[in-house]
Amino acid sequence: MQFHEPPKFPRGFRCASRNCGLKPKAKDLALFVSDVDAAAAAVFTRNHFPGAPVVLGRETIVAGRLRAIVANSKCSNVATGAKGVDNARRMAAAAAAEVGTTADRVLVSSTGVIGVQLPIELIEHGLEGMSGDLQGNPMLGAEGIMTTDSHPKALSVSVGDATITWVAKGSGMIEPNMATMLAYIFTDAAFDRATLDRMLRAAVHVSFNMLSVDTDTSTSDTCALLANGLAGPVDEHEFTEALTAGCIRMSEILARDGEGANHLIRAIVRGATDEGDARRVAKSLVNSPLVKTMVHGADPNVGRLLMAIGKCFDCRVDASSTDVWINRHAVVHGGQRVDFDEAAMRTTLTSEVVDLEVSLGLGEANATAFGCDLTGGYIDENAAYYSS
Amino acid sequence: MQFHEPPKFPRGFRCASRNCGLKPKAKDLALFVSDVDAAAAAVFTRNHFPGAPVVLGRETIVAGRLRAIVANSKCSNVATGAKGVDNARRMAAAAAAEVGTTADRVLVSSTGVIGVQLPIELIEHGLEGMSGDLQGNPMLGAEGIMTTDSHPKALSVSVGDATITWVAKGSGMIEPNMATMLAYIFTDAAFDRATLDRMLRAAVHVSFNMLSVDTDTSTSDTCALLANGLAGPVDEHEFTEALTAGCIRMSEILARDGEGANHLIRAIVRGATDEGDARRVAKSLVNSPLVKTMVHGADPNVGRLLMAIGKCFDCRVDASSTDVWINRHAVVHGGQRVDFDEAAMRTTLTSEVVDLEVSLGLGEANATAFGCDLTGGYIDENAAYYSS
Repeated sequence: MQFHEPPKFPRGFRCASRNCGLKPKAKDLALFVSDVDAAAAAVFTRNHFPGAPVVLGRETIVAGRLRAIVANSKCSNVATGAKGVDNARRMAAAAAAEVGTTADRVLVSSTGVIGVQLPIELIEHGLEGMSGDLQGNPMLGAEGIMTTDSHPKALSVSVGDATITWVAKGSGMIEPNMATMLAYIFTDAAFDRATLDRMLRAAVHVSFNMLSVDTDTSTSDTCALLANGLAGPVDEHEFTEALTAGCIRMSEILARDGEGANHLIRAIVRGATDEGDARRVAKSLVNSPLVKTMVHGADPNVGRLLMAIGKCFDCRVDASSTDVWINRHAVVHGGQRVDFDEAAMRTTLTSEVVDLEVSLGLGEANATAFGCDLTGGYIDENAAYYSS
Repeated sequence: MQFHEPPKFPRGFRCASRNCGLKPKAKDLALFVSDVDAAAAAVFTRNHFPGAPVVLGRETIVAGRLRAIVANSKCSNVATGAKGVDNARRMAAAAAAEVGTTADRVLVSSTGVIGVQLPIELIEHGLEGMSGDLQGNPMLGAEGIMTTDSHPKALSVSVGDATITWVAKGSGMIEPNMATMLAYIFTDAAFDRATLDRMLRAAVHVSFNMLSVDTDTSTSDTCALLANGLAGPVDEHEFTEALTAGCIRMSEILARDGEGANHLIRAIVRGATDEGDARRVAKSLVNSPLVKTMVHGADPNVGRLLMAIGKCFDCRVDASSTDVWINRHAVVHGGQRVDFDEAAMRTTLTSEVVDLEVSLGLGEANATAFGCDLTGGYIDENAAYYSS
């Protein structure tokens, strides 16, 4: 997949971002607009305490039609009760007025601290005149939704005459279950709402839903796909392939930029009895603090990989048929550690990408999970997130 | 429950520990002996890759009769194949010869790095003459099984005329599922093997199986209960109560001494629909890296508690009936954050014990889980565990 460098927007999409006073100086408000109504699908967090924007978003997405997305960082508007939902509605209405549409065509997202009321007046004031700032550079919008991300995140790719563009934020409180923190996907290809929904769910299943920074599922997870149709119809198979590849690439980017992380860890599991087992074993590997710290320290403590596979009590695992490789170096064969060159292992563990490949030798099912190492940086960021 | 200070052994139990050369200088070999055969029960890890000592221990415990336990640290004899099991048998035989019993009455444990063959000659040599060192102080044996524990761990309590004594190690790779890393319980009360087994499983269910340092289930978990009967019969109800209280207290001690930890975190969940839900929500709280770092930083980011409750997708949770307290300060009512004194909250979060109390308001089921905070110390220890 050849991603554009720098990323660009499809026809008819523009965005802007601003500081509206939620953060001292950094951008904290983003607006994404389509020139015409777009067919839309979205998936949201499965957390039992969804934020007010998710409550409203589930209502909004039913019609399958969006003109704009408005998102703020710093405050997630979660655990804020009826007042929180009112504030999310006011945010949609203010963005709709600025863009020239109705509130039911605006998707609202908020990310940041949980349990603090949204300073809605700052956002309403900040939105005034923002349509004058709209530009065709997706990085501008990506900046406005950053929290602890170390850089703004956007990708784009061509499919026939159409373009698909991803804008996302990640970093912490990430084990999505329906979607990642915030990921918006824009295209000028023409698809109806039901097709978009089906394609989005399939792509999310193997990408954002296999991503974990810290096992913690955010209350704000939202992933939306908007198709404004300005490029006309596109081959569905080709589009699905590009959509999936971009979602996987964005998952890797989010994992690599996990809070404090220095490495992208990919757990590639083959030969499981069924897909559920493959996914559980892959997730267990990227979620194990002892595997994550092993990668952080480039410490060839490879027995921990067996521990992490073996703690999947509900999966079928047979020690005698289990083989493991790290970046293609064999470390376990038939459930036993093999002799390997420790110096070479230490070197490969310093690679930016560390692939943990597991063959369970039981069936045909495969899965890949995306994670990162665990470092002192994660501790430092999260021991003072509220206070800083 | 009044624990003895210092802890002592029941009648007829003695122990010793030595350095046999597995570690540079620290003790790495422990021997626990009963003067007469003891009825015994044990539970082991559910990990799919159990160590050789666990494979052998499952065989040994079937007869329900033990004279001795021999344990080494530094090398766990896991993922070592048929040779590993042979070495575990040689270790049992060497201890049996030293003690004057048969190998089938010796329980073997090994803890330490996974995937390295046991230097069995060092252990065989180290055991020679060790019965001459046996003493009545359980702390001596506790020293011999330490890995990254910052102190040896033993407890004892009287029940009628009998004594119950716990000797354990913990620290990392702890989310036991049947038992903790290594925990040995000795008593001179008289119970048959079936009763011991039933009492042990019930006590472990609410103690070691609710303990988690890092979600990682060790391949070596073993918890054994030996009753040599020298004090005669004891009231079963009273004994069960003391057994459970001691297992819970030892779980707290192990959690508090989790690798790098400064705090014991107890998650006390009430009002769940059933016990399974209560246990899952309690575990989710003590396992969340974002809750653990919040406690580490004394950062009153209390919305994270709702996130951790809410990510239990398969549990019944109703936001409107969810209340949360931290050390008896209300922080959430009806799923919404309440106003609280932030300075007081920061102060209480610096307590050595942080109680997270949750009322789900749905039913009558309760559970308590034991965990610790997540610190840079955990990262440092585990980024170089194999190499150091």
